[in-house]
Amino acid sequence: MSPREDAVQSTMQDVPLLISRILTHGSTIHGSSQVITWTGEGEPHRRSFAEIGARAARLAHALRELGVEEGQPTGTLMWNNAEHVEAYFAIPSMGAVLHTLNLRLPPEQLAWIVNHAADRVVIANGSLLPLLAPLLPHLKSVEHVIVSGPGDRSLLDGASVQVHEYEELIADKPETYDWPELDERLGAAMCYTSGTTGDPKGVVFSHRSVYLHSMQINMTQSMGLTDQDTSLVVVPQFHVNAWGVPHATFMTGVNMLMPDRFLQPGPLAEMIESEKPTHAAAVPTIWQGLLGELKAKPRDVSSLTQVTIGGSACPPSLMTAFDELGMRVCHAWGMTETSPLGTIARPPAHVVGTDEEFAYRLTQGRFPASVEARLTGPGGERLPWDGESAGELEVRGPWIAGAYYGGHGATEALRPADKFSEDGWLKTGDVGTISPDGFLTLTDRAKDVIKSGGEWISSVELENALMSHPDVAEAAVVAVPDEKWGERPLATVVLKEGATADFNTLRAFLADEGRIAKWQLPERWTVIEAVPKTSVGKFDKKVLRRQYAAGDLDITQI
Amino acid sequence: MSPREDAVQSTMQDVPLLISRILTHGSTIHGSSQVITWTGEGEPHRRSFAEIGARAARLAHALRELGVEEGQPTGTLMWNNAEHVEAYFAIPSMGAVLHTLNLRLPPEQLAWIVNHAADRVVIANGSLLPLLAPLLPHLKSVEHVIVSGPGDRSLLDGASVQVHEYEELIADKPETYDWPELDERLGAAMCYTSGTTGDPKGVVFSHRSVYLHSMQINMTQSMGLTDQDTSLVVVPQFHVNAWGVPHATFMTGVNMLMPDRFLQPGPLAEMIESEKPTHAAAVPTIWQGLLGELKAKPRDVSSLTQVTIGGSACPPSLMTAFDELGMRVCHAWGMTETSPLGTIARPPAHVVGTDEEFAYRLTQGRFPASVEARLTGPGGERLPWDGESAGELEVRGPWIAGAYYGGHGATEALRPADKFSEDGWLKTGDVGTISPDGFLTLTDRAKDVIKSGGEWISSVELENALMSHPDVAEAAVVAVPDEKWGERPLATVVLKEGATADFNTLRAFLADEGRIAKWQLPERWTVIEAVPKTSVGKFDKKVLRRQYAAGDLDITQI
Repeated sequence: MSPREDAVQSTMQDVPLLISRILTHGSTIHGSSQVITWTGEGEPHRRSFAEIGARAARLAHALRELGVEEGQPTGTLMWNNAEHVEAYFAIPSMGAVLHTLNLRLPPEQLAWIVNHAADRVVIANGSLLPLLAPLLPHLKSVEHVIVSGPGDRSLLDGASVQVHEYEELIADKPETYDWPELDERLGAAMCYTSGTTGDPKGVVFSHRSVYLHSMQINMTQSMGLTDQDTSLVVVPQFHVNAWGVPHATFMTGVNMLMPDRFLQPGPLAEMIESEKPTHAAAVPTIWQGLLGELKAKPRDVSSLTQVTIGGSACPPSLMTAFDELGMRVCHAWGMTETSPLGTIARPPAHVVGTDEEFAYRLTQGRFPASVEARLTGPGGERLPWDGESAGELEVRGPWIAGAYYGGHGATEALRPADKFSEDGWLKTGDVGTISPDGFLTLTDRAKDVIKSGGEWISSVELENALMSHPDVAEAAVVAVPDEKWGERPLATVVLKEGATADFNTLRAFLADEGRIAKWQLPERWTVIEAVPKTSVGKFDKKVLRRQYAAGDLDITQI
Repeated sequence: MSPREDAVQSTMQDVPLLISRILTHGSTIHGSSQVITWTGEGEPHRRSFAEIGARAARLAHALRELGVEEGQPTGTLMWNNAEHVEAYFAIPSMGAVLHTLNLRLPPEQLAWIVNHAADRVVIANGSLLPLLAPLLPHLKSVEHVIVSGPGDRSLLDGASVQVHEYEELIADKPETYDWPELDERLGAAMCYTSGTTGDPKGVVFSHRSVYLHSMQINMTQSMGLTDQDTSLVVVPQFHVNAWGVPHATFMTGVNMLMPDRFLQPGPLAEMIESEKPTHAAAVPTIWQGLLGELKAKPRDVSSLTQVTIGGSACPPSLMTAFDELGMRVCHAWGMTETSPLGTIARPPAHVVGTDEEFAYRLTQGRFPASVEARLTGPGGERLPWDGESAGELEVRGPWIAGAYYGGHGATEALRPADKFSEDGWLKTGDVGTISPDGFLTLTDRAKDVIKSGGEWISSVELENALMSHPDVAEAAVVAVPDEKWGERPLATVVLKEGATADFNTLRAFLADEGRIAKWQLPERWTVIEAVPKTSVGKFDKKVLRRQYAAGDLDITQI
């Protein structure tokens, strides 16, 4: 059906969705809301949204004078603090591209990323100069470093870049800026993902995507905060725009409590007790640490009633422990490529207050209206939302990546076939099920499932079943090549001290009571001393697959 | 600043914001939420969002078979009910334009509007055939009438249009529809405003504007409902898309309670008691009626804790009366041209729980991030947001009209200079102040302010001051031409029986204690028997201005 010649045309204004609009709104209508930055000693530093707005305008003038142009990436190597919020708004509002640098990356990766983006200017916290200074000789495009906050400036002595003091640079600039009327589809912010294989890949958010994502974050069934709330933003601003919190808060006047470099459990507990945030966002490990701290030294953390957890699944025990403290954990799922809000686990009305509610809270949650989802099976077929069929999750939407950034000077974006479907959907690399009411449960990474005869076997399910046997300390299951089936599972088992179970017993245990379907039971078994782990403590299955391929494992076939 | 040649391009997917997306989301992820339609007797009718989705697909197939094309207006003459919700989603999702017909308009205006839009198909409730049937001979473009719900079909006997039964027409159609991937800026829905002067004017909402408005409605500081809520949608679906509620609820699974034609205080009280909605939206007169009903015959209305009032200002006494019933009134301001959400009065955090809070709730509220606002003085100058400078409110944003619809066959949109500024902002015709924290207080319609020597005098302020004198029953103030000042106020006063105050006394009373600034005091006075009123009971100042111009008033100059 093509439109009639006399089709009724919309009479709406054509107003772009721009980050400058969020800034202007936040710094006027919510001008008295605050960004509170922890300083580690004495009173935290408080700056109103109105002040942030004026200082963002000053910063934009300063960057303009340094030659920053529209569409040019400008780096930040900073903790969560008021100045980083200023950069968050000034850089995209003036038309440039905010490039947040992940200070946790290995230095050589960080250098690769800065060179790939070709940042000309980097704003850095003084406390991060020990990381930045030795890198500078390797950063080919960087001409200016702007330093903010405490730290030894002498580390930059002799550097071949121009060094500026943030406060001096912006001091005499005008407090307003005539923000340009940009195309809402322009690049606004960029963030590199550090995959376990290959080079890091750049995701470039547009004004439109950031704006829509901010609206979603403020919807009641997402984070849904108001200007009566204060959000403790533990998730770093260099991780997918701090999950969108800084942009979202300027839309609704939510106060932000910023921990700067004080991310240890002690200072976190202290800032919660003294500043009384009502909400916080962070990955599970941070919360594990905080729980331990509170057990060792109880504080009044009763203000904190809502906690958004993402990054990886929250263990049920952690969720229960937080419930007991009066903190309501809300699971969310996403990735750099999804801005990141992909799902959020607000249980549906009919289970609220029932025994079923907890199970819903343990899922990754449901999709907002702007995120379309589908499951793709091993043969490329679409799977139903029946809560049972497991497939790779693919998503589509206005804040979902459709490509990676090609790099400085490149005219083409990158669309690797393992990351994007032919019709443009993002392949998340996550495998799971979706219930009929749209709740996502993730079980595996796609690279960890075993593709056996056109069906998928979940490695995580096999591992959990194995580890529930009393003789098993740890178990990792990986896919290994198989002539007949394509792939089959290899079970690698760490036995508890003095345990005697043999492989036949373990295999029978898996089959017992229908724990695992018969066709999924591993034929290949080996005992290892410990499961190899990555630097963040996850099972490193690459190592096991390599050892198997090299014939380094002693395999029993049953 | 123009973009660099090697500007970093966004890598986000280019996914349009479409009403079909809202429908698909609501009918799957919130498939068990309900539209409950009051039937006046026995159990109300309940239909799940999943059923609405399937029936909307059927309706789209049926309309397609009747020849409805992309960009073609399709009329609805319906009360608030499940079938009207189906039309709300089916028509724009298939690419046509939903044209809601205001059944309260005089028949000749309704005919003018149908002809202007050139509706080919009209879906009508059976109960409205007594209104539609006599109109049909005057509706030049209408070829098909689809009738839904109870009502005497014989009224259409002999009509020159094809008549269809809604249920029969959709019965055998497929339950899915391959919704087209439209341009988000296409017309999706249209609504005519009936100004007091001139022909009605068509406002055409786009998919984009409806989508963004729906997100805003669901933001915590707007209506902010969840799937645990049920909203009683009293505001008619033919009034600016029922303030956006039906579209918004499908984004979040809020249940809708639809009164159909049962809008009298009795049935409203009954449906609140039996269906226990948590939220309701309507104009003040509806609430006045409900209050009276509840006084006469108390019911349990305790479920209803949040009430959105718009359309005209809520009198403080009404707000207090509702507070005492446990219903929290939330003021909102908007107009057809603003989709309609322009402002909403959620008090800022620092006044919540204080004496100041009530004053904030009486304002029209504050602007969301997507609505830019400015005040323009009598000389066209921009006025500050100081809570004192009164000017005409002008607004800009992605769900604000920038023109009116030119009509069937017209290629140009209408942009009258009294409605749109040269730079494209909507002139609202409302006069008021904005506080530094962005709260709007409206005082006058622009046509009712007196433009005296480059300054504005508020007629409403003068009227309120006059009516606070014990001898005055009613008073209306209008602008009359003045050689020296351009315009000056004329005070028309209705004295209470037996009252003796003369004009000098009243003028002195106005000046007393600085009630009214000296330069604003009227020189021209007259006593009248009653202030002329419009059909809805508002002061009809047109009549007074006409009587003055004709020399029909006995004026005293002091």
